[in-house]
Amino acid sequence: MFKHEKQLLCNVEVERANPYYAALLQEQLGGANGELKAALQYMSQSFRIKDQEIKDLFLDIAAEELGHLEIISQTIMLLNGHDVDATSTQSGQIQSHVLFGLNPGLVNSSGYSWTGDYVSVTGDLCADLLSNIASEQRAKVVYEYLYRQIDDKKVKQTIDFLLNREEAHNAMFRKAFNKIQESGSNKDFGTTPDAKMYLDLSSPSPSNNKFSNIDVNHPSFN
Amino acid sequence: MFKHEKQLLCNVEVERANPYYAALLQEQLGGANGELKAALQYMSQSFRIKDQEIKDLFLDIAAEELGHLEIISQTIMLLNGHDVDATSTQSGQIQSHVLFGLNPGLVNSSGYSWTGDYVSVTGDLCADLLSNIASEQRAKVVYEYLYRQIDDKKVKQTIDFLLNREEAHNAMFRKAFNKIQESGSNKDFGTTPDAKMYLDLSSPSPSNNKFSNIDVNHPSFN
Amino acid sequence: MFKHEKQLLCNVEVERANPYYAALLQEQLGGANGELKAALQYMSQSFRIKDQEIKDLFLDIAAEELGHLEIISQTIMLLNGHDVDATSTQSGQIQSHVLFGLNPGLVNSSGYSWTGDYVSVTGDLCADLLSNIASEQRAKVVYEYLYRQIDDKKVKQTIDFLLNREEAHNAMFRKAFNKIQESGSNKDFGTTPDAKMYLDLSSPSPSNNKFSNIDVNHPSFN
Amino acid sequence: MFKHEKQLLCNVEVERANPYYAALLQEQLGGANGELKAALQYMSQSFRIKDQEIKDLFLDIAAEELGHLEIISQTIMLLNGHDVDATSTQSGQIQSHVLFGLNPGLVNSSGYSWTGDYVSVTGDLCADLLSNIASEQRAKVVYEYLYRQIDDKKVKQTIDFLLNREEAHNAMFRKAFNKIQESGSNKDFGTTPDAKMYLDLSSPSPSNNKFSNIDVNHPSFN
Amino acid sequence: MFKHEKQLLCNVEVERANPYYAALLQEQLGGANGELKAALQYMSQSFRIKDQEIKDLFLDIAAEELGHLEIISQTIMLLNGHDVDATSTQSGQIQSHVLFGLNPGLVNSSGYSWTGDYVSVTGDLCADLLSNIASEQRAKVVYEYLYRQIDDKKVKQTIDFLLNREEAHNAMFRKAFNKIQESGSNKDFGTTPDAKMYLDLSSPSPSNNKFSNIDVNHPSFN
Amino acid sequence: MFKHEKQLLCNVEVERANPYYAALLQEQLGGANGELKAALQYMSQSFRIKDQEIKDLFLDIAAEELGHLEIISQTIMLLNGHDVDATSTQSGQIQSHVLFGLNPGLVNSSGYSWTGDYVSVTGDLCADLLSNIASEQRAKVVYEYLYRQIDDKKVKQTIDFLLNREEAHNAMFRKAFNKIQESGSNKDFGTTPDAKMYLDLSSPSPSNNKFSNIDVNHPSFN
Repeated sequence: MFKHEKQLLCNVEVERANPYYAALLQEQLGGANGELKAALQYMSQSFRIKDQEIKDLFLDIAAEELGHLEIISQTIMLLNGHDVDATSTQSGQIQSHVLFGLNPGLVNSSGYSWTGDYVSVTGDLCADLLSNIASEQRAKVVYEYLYRQIDDKKVKQTIDFLLNREEAHNAMFRKAFNKIQESGSNKDFGTTPDAKMYLDLSSPSPSNNKFSNIDVNHPSFN
Repeated sequence: MFKHEKQLLCNVEVERANPYYAALLQEQLGGANGELKAALQYMSQSFRIKDQEIKDLFLDIAAEELGHLEIISQTIMLLNGHDVDATSTQSGQIQSHVLFGLNPGLVNSSGYSWTGDYVSVTGDLCADLLSNIASEQRAKVVYEYLYRQIDDKKVKQTIDFLLNREEAHNAMFRKAFNKIQESGSNKDFGTTPDAKMYLDLSSPSPSNNKFSNIDVNHPSFN
Repeated sequence: MFKHEKQLLCNVEVERANPYYAALLQEQLGGANGELKAALQYMSQSFRIKDQEIKDLFLDIAAEELGHLEIISQTIMLLNGHDVDATSTQSGQIQSHVLFGLNPGLVNSSGYSWTGDYVSVTGDLCADLLSNIASEQRAKVVYEYLYRQIDDKKVKQTIDFLLNREEAHNAMFRKAFNKIQESGSNKDFGTTPDAKMYLDLSSPSPSNNKFSNIDVNHPSFN
Repeated sequence: MFKHEKQLLCNVEVERANPYYAALLQEQLGGANGELKAALQYMSQSFRIKDQEIKDLFLDIAAEELGHLEIISQTIMLLNGHDVDATSTQSGQIQSHVLFGLNPGLVNSSGYSWTGDYVSVTGDLCADLLSNIASEQRAKVVYEYLYRQIDDKKVKQTIDFLLNREEAHNAMFRKAFNKIQESGSNKDFGTTPDAKMYLDLSSPSPSNNKFSNIDVNHPSFN
Repeated sequence: MFKHEKQLLCNVEVERANPYYAALLQEQLGGANGELKAALQYMSQSFRIKDQEIKDLFLDIAAEELGHLEIISQTIMLLNGHDVDATSTQSGQIQSHVLFGLNPGLVNSSGYSWTGDYVSVTGDLCADLLSNIASEQRAKVVYEYLYRQIDDKKVKQTIDFLLNREEAHNAMFRKAFNKIQESGSNKDFGTTPDAKMYLDLSSPSPSNNKFSNIDVNHPSFN
Repeated sequence: MFKHEKQLLCNVEVERANPYYAALLQEQLGGANGELKAALQYMSQSFRIKDQEIKDLFLDIAAEELGHLEIISQTIMLLNGHDVDATSTQSGQIQSHVLFGLNPGLVNSSGYSWTGDYVSVTGDLCADLLSNIASEQRAKVVYEYLYRQIDDKKVKQTIDFLLNREEAHNAMFRKAFNKIQESGSNKDFGTTPDAKMYLDLSSPSPSNNKFSNIDVNHPSFN
């Protein structure tokens, strides 16, 4: 079960209302690499995990991502200010002003609705962990893009906090991956000649392409 | 912030694995009237609510719906059993067997992905509460359909619990509505002659249609 | 069967072309609470209704909403003017200028395509009527947001007409609800102890929360 | 404006309830080539048409397609019978049994929601008419597939009626196309050398491919 | 199998970076009438074609459309410049700046994701060819809209090339249609009285509507 | 540019037609981890890559995935046999029988349309490579699920070939990742105290959770 505490995971303030920044931040609420996706992906994957430590890890992070969702939503609400006015967004989604009444909504920065298609679940722990590591890295990249385009010190502090938390999750998922790396879809990896061919289908190619001669082993992290 | 407790809100068991029942139950996980929709709708609406009691109510119920999501997901996982075999579903979605590896996924009973389009947020508390009352009534109806089609005593107990909780939420939202009914979109309701016309556009009509003569006042519940 | 008359339900004019206003109005053509959604929801729900008066009511309103769809579409067409020029929209969807050739299209104000997911149909008349009452209230709210942001007297008149009609429908649906309120999903409402619990899952809570002690009866309107 | 008459465009009966046939027929209600798509495509395209005869034609057919929508919906409702039971569908969508309460819903035969993406509108009458001719031909093909798989004489009669109406529309749209074929996107067709090249990019090719030497003129029908 | 050559089908340059033009051009990458849709439609339709010349034609054009996809993508990449800055798009999608890192993405000009719903496949060659002819005409129209709104000589040259290629494909598909016009869904066309009725459902009508008296034959091009 | 050769990348045969197996295989044509997603993801990511070897690698693999798409499509076409009959699928999507005319279509095994939302592009090479490694691992897992459920020796051979190719791609992407691992989003990884916290939000926790004490470095593979 989930219990809610009204205190946020970190302090949330904005220097001043800016509906355009709110439109940008929607990307991390309702977008492909946003907090809702992260929370639901890890929660959905957790159900069949037998390793209790890893199951606990997934649920710790899922709960935290729900907390991030609140942080982003609260920031958007403050940035949206007090008057519906779609011209204030300059570009991107305007549903905040004609549909959501300045609330955060489940859409990305261009107004496209969040979809379960963003969530990867396979029931194979190796594949799920690799998905999560990639998800955390992409979430970091989106926060970097937002950081560059939002000129509000308070919001930048919030973004910085969230970006660093994604790095922490990334490292934790890699540690979990290394623990189980000999199992599931990592077993019997690269055992037939088909797995060792290089098909050079795009031409012309740089000379001496280093990738044409590879060892095909299962993934493992340093 | 959200904190997770591994104990579920109610006990979850199944008499025996039945992947077809699992496919049916997906409707209340990833469907239009399911638990994910409810949790995210109430959470999204809560951000701009100024009445602290009502804000608390929305967050109490949102957190509970996340707990329902876990209950449905755990039931699906148990019903899915241990072998991927799409023929065992008889009808409905088969992604559990080719994509999710028997995990619960964010799709409805026909395999259609959950979408933010299911969630209504307007920033007007009257409209949002009416949306929530309707959502709870629809959720009850879907649980009734599932109850009739699932012949597993343990799962029926779980459905019965969830169905009754939706009734409780329904009543709470109505009480909140009555508290704020003179505000927002309920103000200045039905004041022009246009709001009092009856346009009889479908013919033939039953004689003495009672609806052609109505008082147009704002909604309020007994 | 449907018959079309070229005369609109109300007179439609605009003071002058304004493609940005056209983009805003798309919300009520192809958006979540727009006229297409209303028309198709009531039509879809009408098929299994046995009460002939209520069935007639649903079809009267469905036909009227198709007429509203025409009104909104005609207004958008006039506002779009005569030259494709996406810069004239300032923000929001630009498909009118690169895809629809200044015609109204089935998208919302941010360019997201209309989807059947906006339509609620359950086959239970209590639930369907509650959905419709909520839909009409939300439609009113969106018209209020548009009214505030569109500075064209003629368009404001059109919005005012449509807004008042939604209020009329709202009142009619409530009258129909009261007629059938002891039936379907309203029967056996709130009969188990589970329906009477209050779960206080969000903390801290305001003292003396009034919602923790409620009577759980089925919905009924004053 | 639209007016509704409760009489259907043709008589609708079924030999007996058959929820699987109902699931199949959903394709022509909520599918890519179905009646809803046709009605909304022609209505959406009609707004900017200046030729009053062609505008009238589009609206005549749009109104008729709404009538077809009713016919298909009524047939589905009769085929769905009286008990929610998803096992009765054998294959395809089961939302009729867990969500719609045996009503017709806005989904296709696999349970995928209708979307505005099925509708083509360009504001260019040549392109729109070609889209409509193709749409009518595809609708005919789907009816042929359904006709082969549905073993109910009454339903076959209904399908036969609808299929023949699509042929009539097809012919009317072609006649309209020939009337305006020297206009819009048909002007200045095929005037540069780039429009006359044949790029043979798939190999090996059949010898003497007849398509490599073509006159590039604008489309016109016999 | 497909082989890639790094040389593009035509030279691609831009006068200068212009992220707003990039947003417009996304319509022909990830939009309803864009290059991805064309490539995948023809490829998907090709599998069951028995006429080897026509199958070859479909694959020639499918491969070329993939080449067009590269051309549009490369143009977008150059127009996007070197700095993420969503204000530079003025209107329309901004995902290029918060999600794709200035890469071309699979979205249209308003940021709506590409969907398989744009692709028409029926397994009937008459219907598929009519779909393709209509698709090519619509693609031409969109290129004309873009040509008018993009003031960059180099990009205009690229658009001109692509527009003319669509005309060539259009003519080829018509030639193929005439070859097979007596087959499939064109057989037994318009044989019952139902196919010959004109239903005058929109009123008032222009006098002497020419469409009310038509011969219902199968489609064939001059 | 792309050139097509009619010869497939590997030989494709089936023991006998089996439309149910065809429905299953649709997952790897039009599903979230299928071949279309892979081809378009790598192609979309390739545009801004400066390292010519890695760009060549992405295009080699993208072209190969298009070839895999053909292999899967051809297998589906053979398995679909010669008669539209939706009952032959047992479960899952039936659009092959009512819409596509036994052609492969751009839908997954439950009939849900392919969407650009499956494709991850960030413009950051570290993030994109991690996405690709995860994608290849997930594709392998889906092929394993299909392999277990499809009892046709010839189809099993095809699946085995494709599965091994995904392993090869996986290894190549990891080698490319190690080459560029000190760049882009991998720079300045884990430098603030926020990146080093462990938030224990799910309770009770297993004792001595190993993940609570981690080094936060950027990802790198062995």
